[in-house]
Amino acid sequence: MGLIVQKFGGTSLADSSHIKRAAKRVAEVKRAGNQVIVVVSARGQTTDELYALAYEITDNPSSRELDMLVSTGEQVSACLLTMALHAMGEEASAFTAGQIGILTDSRHTKAKIMRIDPQRLGQELEQGSIPVVAGFQGVDEQDNITTLGRGGSDTTAVALAAVFKADICEIYTDVEGVYTSDPRIVAEARKLSVLSYDEMLELASSGASVLQHRAVEFAKKYNVPVMVRSSFSDFPGTIISEEVRTMEDVVVRGAAVEKNEAKITIRGVPDRPGIAARILGSVAEQDLNIDMIVQNISAEGLTDVTLTVARSDLKEAIEVFEKLKKEIGARGVESDEHIAKISVVGVGMRTHSGVATKMFQALAEAGINIQMISTSEIKISCVIDEKSADEALRVVHKAFELEKAATK
Amino acid sequence: MGLIVQKFGGTSLADSSHIKRAAKRVAEVKRAGNQVIVVVSARGQTTDELYALAYEITDNPSSRELDMLVSTGEQVSACLLTMALHAMGEEASAFTAGQIGILTDSRHTKAKIMRIDPQRLGQELEQGSIPVVAGFQGVDEQDNITTLGRGGSDTTAVALAAVFKADICEIYTDVEGVYTSDPRIVAEARKLSVLSYDEMLELASSGASVLQHRAVEFAKKYNVPVMVRSSFSDFPGTIISEEVRTMEDVVVRGAAVEKNEAKITIRGVPDRPGIAARILGSVAEQDLNIDMIVQNISAEGLTDVTLTVARSDLKEAIEVFEKLKKEIGARGVESDEHIAKISVVGVGMRTHSGVATKMFQALAEAGINIQMISTSEIKISCVIDEKSADEALRVVHKAFELEKAATK
Repeated sequence: MGLIVQKFGGTSLADSSHIKRAAKRVAEVKRAGNQVIVVVSARGQTTDELYALAYEITDNPSSRELDMLVSTGEQVSACLLTMALHAMGEEASAFTAGQIGILTDSRHTKAKIMRIDPQRLGQELEQGSIPVVAGFQGVDEQDNITTLGRGGSDTTAVALAAVFKADICEIYTDVEGVYTSDPRIVAEARKLSVLSYDEMLELASSGASVLQHRAVEFAKKYNVPVMVRSSFSDFPGTIISEEVRTMEDVVVRGAAVEKNEAKITIRGVPDRPGIAARILGSVAEQDLNIDMIVQNISAEGLTDVTLTVARSDLKEAIEVFEKLKKEIGARGVESDEHIAKISVVGVGMRTHSGVATKMFQALAEAGINIQMISTSEIKISCVIDEKSADEALRVVHKAFELEKAATK
Repeated sequence: MGLIVQKFGGTSLADSSHIKRAAKRVAEVKRAGNQVIVVVSARGQTTDELYALAYEITDNPSSRELDMLVSTGEQVSACLLTMALHAMGEEASAFTAGQIGILTDSRHTKAKIMRIDPQRLGQELEQGSIPVVAGFQGVDEQDNITTLGRGGSDTTAVALAAVFKADICEIYTDVEGVYTSDPRIVAEARKLSVLSYDEMLELASSGASVLQHRAVEFAKKYNVPVMVRSSFSDFPGTIISEEVRTMEDVVVRGAAVEKNEAKITIRGVPDRPGIAARILGSVAEQDLNIDMIVQNISAEGLTDVTLTVARSDLKEAIEVFEKLKKEIGARGVESDEHIAKISVVGVGMRTHSGVATKMFQALAEAGINIQMISTSEIKISCVIDEKSADEALRVVHKAFELEKAATK
């Protein structure tokens, strides 16, 4: 007997027949002698529809009420899936995050889970009942409803798996697993059977949206094995777990493109100690989502610092930088939102040379100019023109022969 | 400076323009120097749509999850109205019933409010903010979400008005107030400017669905003046308050018809002390909604007891009565769901004779047979054939000249 957390995404709960199918999966696992905790997203387009309602009222809805509004989507899903389980003869109860004590900080629309009270869910499990939890949400110390950001239901699922030491956290979605690249762009993209947390993290932050970044961090931190799989088939999906031996031979695991970023540069910054901290501090204060940070060597005592931020944060980032420009006596602020970021990711990369060269060559041969480069131990990212994004993904995927199964 | 509770029904919040209009009303009252508590229903058809979702999943949805499901409708309304208030520059916060401590018993789908914790709402009011409360809902001791039954938002509003000793509880709806009869059936029906709690109670239980019965009971118990008015016009509505002097001359205040009941008779019951209690006890155990209870004098030591129940409860009532029949040795059980109940209501009635005669005559002249009669101090009700319901309402309305304004 094991404990399994199953998370169903919006497409897996789109209508009553989907909900019944999801219930069937839950019941099967339960009847096989396991304890099950279910986490649900909002059905289909519900979240977008709720946002649309808010923006019909005002261009600038308050984040507290926005959270309280959209959280109803997951609550509805939880109730419906629970009813479907009852109809199959299973004991089950629906829960909001508040009812099972998922406590977060108060940063509405992007709250972080602080702790989870295991008591009520524990009771349910002991009684042989299946708790069905509304994902994506929490409550803060004052009992205000918060949300964990888009895709936050993954985080709820992994967090519950961590608290209850689940054997596995299954993420049911509309794709078969994690791919070497986005199959909608790269026809040859291949499903990976296994992936390390770090690789998944780098892929997620590079635009592979199959799993929320924070969910993977959580999984890594608490060593929760996660399986991403389709709710529409019985194929095994992709298991994400600790780095394992068999992975070592593989150099590049996948390639991804991120199109929702913009770059912003502050030019002619006096190159002295503390200046980067000053810049980042200002950005952090505004709670902007930063991705890449690039600073090259200075010339004549002046340097340029470029960040990539979520495109939706660019306007605010420009304001911060313009203010900063005056304060630190920089020369100018430039920005461009027509960029894309292409990345290759792989644990093996750290012990293999030539990966970067191969990537840069592939881009060059396709006539794609590289605007910025940033590397980590398991990732290389290049900022390029937005127009070349899909082309870049295809040529890079081909260059690393990602369509072929890895030798193990 | 006063404290005013304003409750907006579903039709008053049907879309974004309606919501903004409601917000404008709230803001006006606030800007006139009052404290305001707002209570909202679900928008338009939301509750029905949510029920439909549940019944797509199963014919027999669990009441706990049903409550949790439909309660999202009011939560959405509260968020949207709060956003509309923000857009107008007002401070406001949306609240679920749980967040402001509306504690109920655990009888899902028809829970009763046990107490309300005034702390959080009190803080909001002190800070000059407008709390916008999701109506119709509560939480029980175990933090499960409950609902107060259809129209329960009225009860939420009146209960909050009672706790905070509001000067008035305004119920905004899609009609101009309380009428002498249903204007959809009786063209001459006239809006009443004032009405006592008792009259409203009798009218409500007689099928005038403008205000939930329990809400009026609450208002009477805590002496909360209630005004029913239209959110689509600025006409003053109907004030419901303690019986006042000026009402005395009026004999019959209104006429109403109830079409959602069924009658059930247990025949040939041994007429001995305690038998009525035994019958009612069995019915009460099943939590059925009883309206009329009629027992006539016995013949040969046997009597018949007839109840009218909500039509949706008839099946269950028959089961109870069949079981009871065996236990107490009654002769038979009969039922009929094709009935209607026509009532006339008026405080003045108790000091005037001839009201019943006039009513029975009007029905007789229209060839309508009276199946059962029941009277209270301020109401006379007759059960008739369902087919004659509208006709009966028209002839009774005419007989009492309810289209004419009362002399005061």
